[in-house]
Amino acid sequence: MNITFCCTDMKAEPWLVGLRAALPQAKVSEWHPGAPQADHAVVWAPPQRFVDEQRGLKAMFNTGAGVDALLKLRLPPSIQIVRLDDAGMAVQMAEYVCHAVIRYFREFDVYDADVAQGQWALRKPRVRKEFPVGVMGLGVLGERVSRALRQFEFPVRGWSRSPRSLEGVACYAGPSAFRTFLSSSRVLVNLLPLTLDTSNILNHDTLSLLRPGAYVINVARGAHLVDDDLLALLDSGHLAGATLDVFRTEPLPAAHPFWAHPKITITPHTSARTLREESIAQIAGKILAFERGEPVGGLVDVARGY
Amino acid sequence: MNITFCCTDMKAEPWLVGLRAALPQAKVSEWHPGAPQADHAVVWAPPQRFVDEQRGLKAMFNTGAGVDALLKLRLPPSIQIVRLDDAGMAVQMAEYVCHAVIRYFREFDVYDADVAQGQWALRKPRVRKEFPVGVMGLGVLGERVSRALRQFEFPVRGWSRSPRSLEGVACYAGPSAFRTFLSSSRVLVNLLPLTLDTSNILNHDTLSLLRPGAYVINVARGAHLVDDDLLALLDSGHLAGATLDVFRTEPLPAAHPFWAHPKITITPHTSARTLREESIAQIAGKILAFERGEPVGGLVDVARGY
Repeated sequence: MNITFCCTDMKAEPWLVGLRAALPQAKVSEWHPGAPQADHAVVWAPPQRFVDEQRGLKAMFNTGAGVDALLKLRLPPSIQIVRLDDAGMAVQMAEYVCHAVIRYFREFDVYDADVAQGQWALRKPRVRKEFPVGVMGLGVLGERVSRALRQFEFPVRGWSRSPRSLEGVACYAGPSAFRTFLSSSRVLVNLLPLTLDTSNILNHDTLSLLRPGAYVINVARGAHLVDDDLLALLDSGHLAGATLDVFRTEPLPAAHPFWAHPKITITPHTSARTLREESIAQIAGKILAFERGEPVGGLVDVARGY
Repeated sequence: MNITFCCTDMKAEPWLVGLRAALPQAKVSEWHPGAPQADHAVVWAPPQRFVDEQRGLKAMFNTGAGVDALLKLRLPPSIQIVRLDDAGMAVQMAEYVCHAVIRYFREFDVYDADVAQGQWALRKPRVRKEFPVGVMGLGVLGERVSRALRQFEFPVRGWSRSPRSLEGVACYAGPSAFRTFLSSSRVLVNLLPLTLDTSNILNHDTLSLLRPGAYVINVARGAHLVDDDLLALLDSGHLAGATLDVFRTEPLPAAHPFWAHPKITITPHTSARTLREESIAQIAGKILAFERGEPVGGLVDVARGY
């Protein structure tokens, strides 16, 4: 079995060493133009030429949860795409979102500003039941995030394409329930996959439906959000703040207004990092299951987009 | 049944209204010097004169979890003291501590500083198993905090006076295990009651035992911590940071070095606020249980100090 590695955003060597150790029966090498045909590929945002040359692949294993970069390519119709299920990303996402939600709910950002001015000033505690959190996307990450938020006793609502049932979470499904879901949320957390249907889904119309003084947390993809609409609603006061980890262009261009906006917190796409050790173990397991003809978790429906 | 109310840090009227609604059979009034004898008292840090005059009290119900302010008074030997169990404080404490631990573990404070300088810079993720969190005090609050931290998959150690057993938490008990507990902790969370035994427990000797680059989170009482020892260990680099919610003198005096120290985050004793509605419901329930001769949760052992 030949495995080719083509990830454009990380150093190949530690991955090759890890994959060889996890799959001693396989020949694992880094892809280069003209490289021999492989059976499987481990990829992140490969170039079109990679796909054009590697026509004999049975499957491509994505080293992240979102496959939007892969689905932008012209792919052969028969190819199977498998995405990472979790591999340590869900707990990171739960951390990132809980940190941001708690920071807003408890106004720790405001306390920090007070302290910087030498002020000791108690604020009236916010009421938890008036702070419902809406989670868009209830896959592995959204489910884990919802569970973590429940532990802090926030009212949690979830919205997904197809109906889901999660303990303690009011679940809404499909376009018809979207407005109801939005209008009951004080915090909106976006964990959707990026598809044609979800592109620009965070826009003036949808964000206006959130409760006054709402907060937006985008940890999915920059193209979900219409930047200017967010800025307008922050400036009008309808939205109180936003925490953004993902952007239309990354790194975020130096001149972008998000950098210095007082109501926006940004991080450099670090909400859920691909952890090499966990990812290699998971991908090796998926390759072996695939070879044995067993079901493989994370198989992407290319038409659906995730 | 007569109930007297004597809380020096909050407005009486909403409490009186709430207590009367919860206990319609009782006469509830605010204490003043010379007020009639009551059967029960609802108190926070009352003056000595209150105790000296109200000699007929069966019990005093404290509107917080820590009773150190009450135990400083000369009390009649027969008096029963009951402290608040939780009443919405445990979830707040879990929020406060998780927010601080995640902020350190994920280096969100460092990312904020980078972003303020216009820098998009990814940092190597820290390894979770090298970030054990030690929780001092495993009562209602410590247990809830430990459980919340476990959900984020941190290794959690607990230390308490008497042996405890908590699922997924390595529990240490008593003075003989204290050094071992400290030396295995990268983050130290203090939730102990303030007693003669625990006063100044966070000092140069004990904090030096923590792993290099450790963080201290004090959410118990200011008198647990020797301020100058903390400053010395932050300045030497052995400690990487501290988040402090409580201080020897509150409000923290304007000239205190904690205000502007770059490695210290302070908040104005807001980690777990007494929530009126929940507290009134709980205290009313305790008073009724007491009157019926049933066991009352939160009965303080005066000799032990909590």
